[in-house]
Amino acid sequence: MGINVPGPTMTLAELNAMPAAAFTAALAPVFENAPWVAAGIVAKRPFVTLSALHRAMMALIGTQSTDAQTAFLRGHPRLAPETLRNGTTVESTAEQTAAGIGTLDDAKLTTLSRLNAAYDAKFGFPFILAVRRASLPTLLATFERRLAAGLEAERAEALTEIAAISWMRLLDRVEPAPTGSLSTHVLDTVRAAPAVGLGVELWRVDGEATCLESFVTDDNGASSRELLSEGRLRAGTYEWRYDTPTYFAAIGYPTQARSFLGKVSVTFSVWNPEEHFHVPLLLTPGSYTTYRGS
Amino acid sequence: MGINVPGPTMTLAELNAMPAAAFTAALAPVFENAPWVAAGIVAKRPFVTLSALHRAMMALIGTQSTDAQTAFLRGHPRLAPETLRNGTTVESTAEQTAAGIGTLDDAKLTTLSRLNAAYDAKFGFPFILAVRRASLPTLLATFERRLAAGLEAERAEALTEIAAISWMRLLDRVEPAPTGSLSTHVLDTVRAAPAVGLGVELWRVDGEATCLESFVTDDNGASSRELLSEGRLRAGTYEWRYDTPTYFAAIGYPTQARSFLGKVSVTFSVWNPEEHFHVPLLLTPGSYTTYRGS
Amino acid sequence: MGINVPGPTMTLAELNAMPAAAFTAALAPVFENAPWVAAGIVAKRPFVTLSALHRAMMALIGTQSTDAQTAFLRGHPRLAPETLRNGTTVESTAEQTAAGIGTLDDAKLTTLSRLNAAYDAKFGFPFILAVRRASLPTLLATFERRLAAGLEAERAEALTEIAAISWMRLLDRVEPAPTGSLSTHVLDTVRAAPAVGLGVELWRVDGEATCLESFVTDDNGASSRELLSEGRLRAGTYEWRYDTPTYFAAIGYPTQARSFLGKVSVTFSVWNPEEHFHVPLLLTPGSYTTYRGS
Amino acid sequence: MGINVPGPTMTLAELNAMPAAAFTAALAPVFENAPWVAAGIVAKRPFVTLSALHRAMMALIGTQSTDAQTAFLRGHPRLAPETLRNGTTVESTAEQTAAGIGTLDDAKLTTLSRLNAAYDAKFGFPFILAVRRASLPTLLATFERRLAAGLEAERAEALTEIAAISWMRLLDRVEPAPTGSLSTHVLDTVRAAPAVGLGVELWRVDGEATCLESFVTDDNGASSRELLSEGRLRAGTYEWRYDTPTYFAAIGYPTQARSFLGKVSVTFSVWNPEEHFHVPLLLTPGSYTTYRGS
Repeated sequence: MGINVPGPTMTLAELNAMPAAAFTAALAPVFENAPWVAAGIVAKRPFVTLSALHRAMMALIGTQSTDAQTAFLRGHPRLAPETLRNGTTVESTAEQTAAGIGTLDDAKLTTLSRLNAAYDAKFGFPFILAVRRASLPTLLATFERRLAAGLEAERAEALTEIAAISWMRLLDRVEPAPTGSLSTHVLDTVRAAPAVGLGVELWRVDGEATCLESFVTDDNGASSRELLSEGRLRAGTYEWRYDTPTYFAAIGYPTQARSFLGKVSVTFSVWNPEEHFHVPLLLTPGSYTTYRGS
Repeated sequence: MGINVPGPTMTLAELNAMPAAAFTAALAPVFENAPWVAAGIVAKRPFVTLSALHRAMMALIGTQSTDAQTAFLRGHPRLAPETLRNGTTVESTAEQTAAGIGTLDDAKLTTLSRLNAAYDAKFGFPFILAVRRASLPTLLATFERRLAAGLEAERAEALTEIAAISWMRLLDRVEPAPTGSLSTHVLDTVRAAPAVGLGVELWRVDGEATCLESFVTDDNGASSRELLSEGRLRAGTYEWRYDTPTYFAAIGYPTQARSFLGKVSVTFSVWNPEEHFHVPLLLTPGSYTTYRGS
Repeated sequence: MGINVPGPTMTLAELNAMPAAAFTAALAPVFENAPWVAAGIVAKRPFVTLSALHRAMMALIGTQSTDAQTAFLRGHPRLAPETLRNGTTVESTAEQTAAGIGTLDDAKLTTLSRLNAAYDAKFGFPFILAVRRASLPTLLATFERRLAAGLEAERAEALTEIAAISWMRLLDRVEPAPTGSLSTHVLDTVRAAPAVGLGVELWRVDGEATCLESFVTDDNGASSRELLSEGRLRAGTYEWRYDTPTYFAAIGYPTQARSFLGKVSVTFSVWNPEEHFHVPLLLTPGSYTTYRGS
Repeated sequence: MGINVPGPTMTLAELNAMPAAAFTAALAPVFENAPWVAAGIVAKRPFVTLSALHRAMMALIGTQSTDAQTAFLRGHPRLAPETLRNGTTVESTAEQTAAGIGTLDDAKLTTLSRLNAAYDAKFGFPFILAVRRASLPTLLATFERRLAAGLEAERAEALTEIAAISWMRLLDRVEPAPTGSLSTHVLDTVRAAPAVGLGVELWRVDGEATCLESFVTDDNGASSRELLSEGRLRAGTYEWRYDTPTYFAAIGYPTQARSFLGKVSVTFSVWNPEEHFHVPLLLTPGSYTTYRGS
């Protein structure tokens, strides 16, 4: 994820069972300078998923008055080297450092200062972005675009970013419910039939690439079981790798040597590990289509 | 390519200008035990591309009588460890060794022996496959399928494989004409408009992955110039890498953090480096389609 | 279907319960001049689907000797006006007439005569094609291509065509099992989520277009029930019509006025009404992909 | 287009050459109660395309003060039966009548009154929509959605709709420049090659369907010339119809009888007839993808 976190230290069951004060203390860092969010959902326990807990928090923020929301937005630190120098929350320090805010060159520093000043002047609250998974070019591209937006749209976008930040911080602290998993399905659209007997690997590719699963598609062109189920799916970046040359050779389409496609890889992000991610592949020797299925 | 070759030692111009005997000698190893193929096209020079030269050779083979073609097929060595032990052409030895024929385990050896015996008995000539780019599973899958084919289909397929083998051997010896190149084009199908300002990298991924080109798409969603033109395109495996998260962030679609797709990679094979390879990408935040364009 | 047939007059249950002679008589016209096919599967009853019955017939043909198969192929009438003039089976007469064989202009007549003569001379049996659903251009295009094929491939293709002809004739006579149905599923790939609330119509478009079903997609982007199930699905041509402009207007994508796509229609053929046909649509304002799903 | 208009009565050349007062008078009805827009671009003549003229008008509106824009928005009539009864501009009367505003049933009337009242109360200007090409369900779906938007977003959307309305009114009056045309390109993604020899028809399908062009794809899988060029392209709805069964039969893929796809149709809207519309089709026997190309 770009920053090192020791991993979740609580389960949902533990969180549901805690005294109110402990619950609030445990989740206070999830939002910047706003422990009232955690305090405000204590009475809504138990939560069966982390997603439900997070929705309850965001709903509470959504029902605040405009003034209260503005104050909440103003409670967020600037994305800026001076924030890091002057000290801010542990969480924001780690996230900003990982995004490279602490080591900008002079040109980037000047750009960021200009953007921050213009943004504050226009909107009255700091620019908020879930920087943990954003590269510096993404950060600056987003900043330029949002500076041109209207106040109304920008307040909504700031809340969307806060939802993203708080979700990642929740995942740092609490084990997600074991409801998520992965699956794939390959359709050979030359014959309009499942691609049977195709070798598939599932890789985790966040840091050093690691092969997690390896199987051959069954009669439905799929893995015969859900993958990374029972709590083994984590947020991060994954990749399906399909051995299409061997498949095409076996059924008599052109072999790799003379076909256009090599092994097909599909990289995708798992943002909410409590969800199921289904990735279909529509395959021919000369093309493919992939998407998040349902 | 799996085997080490020192690289081409001649240009087409040199080949066109050689005495007939030298031309025949230079190209004799392109076909197994059939120097008559090279000799038979001497008078057709000059050739403006390696593709044209290769087409002339295959056309000559295609006009032989059935008996002559059978003799030609029989001139090919078995894909088998005993072939390597007993000695065969330099080219076939290198190719079979690279495909792992020399280091099969016992189970694979038994399978291969059974397949070879059955194939020879059924068709009267050895199983011919362009093994240089085929993995062992591809080789065995192909062998099983082709053993079930009819004689007529199998003669045609053997010639197709010989075309592949001889093409690779030609590329080992002679510089291709500098007519090939690569291009890509990205269409944002949410807006039905070119994806402008998208970061793209072109990698060579045969051995250690190497970044060859890096650019940002122009107003047409493309690179503003042909890539690897003027003779720099070589046969092999390449990969386009598209920085889709930054693009989506810049235009205001969901950022990587909340989108499904990570960076999109498209791997493809260049078999004939004299051709132009155009790879379009149809892109949305939740799906993409790619194909060999024209 | 191009020819008028009164519709099936038997059910599978009736066919399963008939005396052997009646069964053979009922199914004799399914193959040209080959009542032995029907006779040969009497003992395999009962059949739970028409597909199973048909597979048994084709399997029996597949196990005959080469000579017996050649005789079987020779039992088929030429596709030619003289066949119609000289008289042939009721079934072939109806099918050839519907394909326009009886009313060819002089140029087409000459072409067809040439093709028939060349084909018979090369292969020793008449050109066999399931003409009932083939237009005249399709017939001639197919004839030219197949004339260039090898004997082995052409014997296989003739059997494939006979499978098609006999399947249509079976459907003329016997009610299929009520196992088939239709469904669709629309994915909005801008958001990687089901397209909820999209108006969809299902039309039959063989003769005069008729709207059979009309519904709005549910939370899964699908019809909430199988369509044309319980025996109501028939062989023929159907069309899904999607009211994409209203959908895009409702969710805030560009309205029809300014978008590229009008209402999206997908036409498809149901060949085997005992199967389920699932047609997914991957949709954006500027593109769509459709395929036969599984 | 839903309403009858006699067709353009001027050319761009005539408009460019008119006295200023005549120019303003000719274009005054393009915007509701705002002749100052036409007057404000007189000095920018000549315009080489209608698109350029329209962009100039919208740019002028965009540079007005917020108060002036609000007054401009308030100059638009309500979409309501009382507007039609009380009288409004000729143009709005025709457009609202065509959309069915004059013949709503009681339930729809109640809904529309509620929406109009709530919208005016919230935003201070009437709901503006380019109704001419919107069906009643589209109108109501859009109204509900936009009522939930913020002021800033809604002002922007109202201007977008005014751009659409004024563009259609311009097309009613002035001949577009003859710069537009249509083309298609079919790629057979089984072979990663152009689909050569495929029969294609181009239909106009706004009212009674009419076939405008019929051709066979050339060696590039395309029409060998631009279609409806030289001023013959008009705004409206068109359809490409591809004879895929004959194509698949000719190259030896499964014939229509046994394939899933029937003839493929792609319907699309031409909004700006000064543009070129390129529609690629990526085709296999079991799937296709289409999009607006560039």
